Amino acid sequence: MKRLAILGSTGSIGRSALSVVDAHPDRLRVVALAAGDNATLLAEQAQRYRPVVVGLASAEAADRFRSAYPTFPCSVVVGAAGLSAVASCAEADIVLCASSGTAALEAVLAAIDAGKTIALANKEVLVMAGALVTAAAARRGVAILPVDSEHNAIHQCLHGRAPHEVRRLILTASGGPFRDLPPEALNRVGPEAALQHPTWQMGKKITIDSATLMNKGLEVIEAHWLFGVPADRIDVVIHPQSIVHSMVELTDGSVIAQLGITDMRLPIQYACSYPDRWEAAFPRLDLARAGRLDFGPPDEERFPCLGLAYRALRGGATHAVVLNAANEVAVASFLEDRLGFTMIPSVIERVMNEHHPEPVSSVDTVRRVDAWARDRAAAEVRGLEWQK
Amino acid sequence: MKRLAILGSTGSIGRSALSVVDAHPDRLRVVALAAGDNATLLAEQAQRYRPVVVGLASAEAADRFRSAYPTFPCSVVVGAAGLSAVASCAEADIVLCASSGTAALEAVLAAIDAGKTIALANKEVLVMAGALVTAAAARRGVAILPVDSEHNAIHQCLHGRAPHEVRRLILTASGGPFRDLPPEALNRVGPEAALQHPTWQMGKKITIDSATLMNKGLEVIEAHWLFGVPADRIDVVIHPQSIVHSMVELTDGSVIAQLGITDMRLPIQYACSYPDRWEAAFPRLDLARAGRLDFGPPDEERFPCLGLAYRALRGGATHAVVLNAANEVAVASFLEDRLGFTMIPSVIERVMNEHHPEPVSSVDTVRRVDAWARDRAAAEVRGLEWQK
Repeated sequence: MKRLAILGSTGSIGRSALSVVDAHPDRLRVVALAAGDNATLLAEQAQRYRPVVVGLASAEAADRFRSAYPTFPCSVVVGAAGLSAVASCAEADIVLCASSGTAALEAVLAAIDAGKTIALANKEVLVMAGALVTAAAARRGVAILPVDSEHNAIHQCLHGRAPHEVRRLILTASGGPFRDLPPEALNRVGPEAALQHPTWQMGKKITIDSATLMNKGLEVIEAHWLFGVPADRIDVVIHPQSIVHSMVELTDGSVIAQLGITDMRLPIQYACSYPDRWEAAFPRLDLARAGRLDFGPPDEERFPCLGLAYRALRGGATHAVVLNAANEVAVASFLEDRLGFTMIPSVIERVMNEHHPEPVSSVDTVRRVDAWARDRAAAEVRGLEWQK
Repeated sequence: MKRLAILGSTGSIGRSALSVVDAHPDRLRVVALAAGDNATLLAEQAQRYRPVVVGLASAEAADRFRSAYPTFPCSVVVGAAGLSAVASCAEADIVLCASSGTAALEAVLAAIDAGKTIALANKEVLVMAGALVTAAAARRGVAILPVDSEHNAIHQCLHGRAPHEVRRLILTASGGPFRDLPPEALNRVGPEAALQHPTWQMGKKITIDSATLMNKGLEVIEAHWLFGVPADRIDVVIHPQSIVHSMVELTDGSVIAQLGITDMRLPIQYACSYPDRWEAAFPRLDLARAGRLDFGPPDEERFPCLGLAYRALRGGATHAVVLNAANEVAVASFLEDRLGFTMIPSVIERVMNEHHPEPVSSVDTVRRVDAWARDRAAAEVRGLEWQK
């Protein structure tokens, strides 16, 4: 029996994880749950799974949780410290980090310090602080198992192979809804069109990141930290059907790929079962029925975010913190209709150009650079609005 | 340094193997070579690679070899016994069995008895005598590494995974040159059209087998013996581009695939390097450039040979010996323009229907059933000619 703590249990990944638990009641038990503000759903989940501790973003949310589930037998913790408490709770073996954004960083470090296996579904943690997180995991002998479908695929493809067998990692990208849109039309796209992802149902921020290819850029940075492969040996190929989840090219030219349906329960279950693999009743991939898989090169001219991410990774130090923070501000502004789609990379690039990098030596450094980049990005957005 | 014996060194696979040796002079050394009748080429190879023993099919061929290379410093052996002597020569670590047809069976068994690692590029050996060969290999603790691109792909996909993780094997098939031909047109195809394989350059017999899908049927039987998976967990999918060389579906629904260029040096080098993997300077697979991969179900109505192979595998015992022998006779007759393309499966089916199966208990049994099936198939072909 593996005991599971879920950070972000009311989100899409969190709910998928609970359905994996439902499918394997003899193998998985939920011992801790954390959510943001959705106290009502968290109360329902707590009633069903009986965790020993739950975490919420705020005292108000905690009050709503207690009203919804007054007889909850155990501790309720709040805020960032609460999230870290959930992540390091003594009862858990595996911590699934599915809370989005940058808030999870301290919680993941707390879980690593507590010796938990990390199932990581949060991109920002490695993008911002890959050096800190991977060093901590190595020191503590803790495994970081990727839940993102691309990195999960690469983890499966690398299984049992030595580092010297690997020539390059190949991340697939759906290409987003604007894959075939001419450059002039990209200027005019609004949030609604950008939120139509061709293959995956996801949150708003990540869906816009898919449309700009920044999502793939962040994944390149993640892949670097997860698998210890440098930027020039990580490639991206556009694959609109999202059936090949990613690939590894080996030194003799063989390419190993992982394919599957687009269902997050698959990588979540993989991370929970690893190093074993369990039966699953997910619908099967039927390739003969899928019929056709397409592949093509990414267009870095129309989608400069991908190139910015490579630049941040090659630059090292705090460049990726700036990339991530400026992107979050730019995407939020786009979703509020305050910034044009093609201006998202422009804002990021301007902030990156102004940044004086420093080593990622502590969480404080990360937080300080993150705050600086957000301020600068917000100022850039305001400047562009003023010009309109 | 691994020491290599090559059975069938003058054929296409044998020559590719020698070019792999050329690329890795510090890792591979040729110690024994065997060929059929091509004494001239064998003499050139012997002059270059200096094996300690060479084998030829006949005394006449051996004489031609000695004339071509009079100063050859070592033994020349002939016939079936000679082939077995080459296969079990004391100096070899790995025996690459690339001689075609049924003659290699005793040689492979001799190599296994001598404790050699087997790199197997011959289909007939496992189709006819999989039970004998795999039992002998298990007894002697000898590995059989598949060189056929499909089985080599599956071997790579299975690497590091436990048997209980595997749900099914998925062999890809190009579908051959008549993949899209309507049934009535199939009646009229002649040897010349059938010899145009869309993706691989191969010998005549195997090219016809690709056009009838019998090649894939034989591979299903081979896969059963190589990987210990029953017929109902081995599927075939048509994939005209031959870039995905084969796949494995795991219990959680993940599919692991091996992709590569269509170049036999890749699986040959894999078998030579295993369990390590070496750098190679083969052209790279560029998926973004390949652009498109198609998949579809095999049409067992137009290509009944695939179904006959499944029937032979499910029937067990000597059924597969009959399938293989009757197919060889029918294909030879087709190549001589004595039998129509669509009559190939009819001949095989008739012979299979007459067969009283017995356990594959010895090489003698295999040889006896093989001879019987060839006689019966030849009689069927004559009967059909007489009706014309």
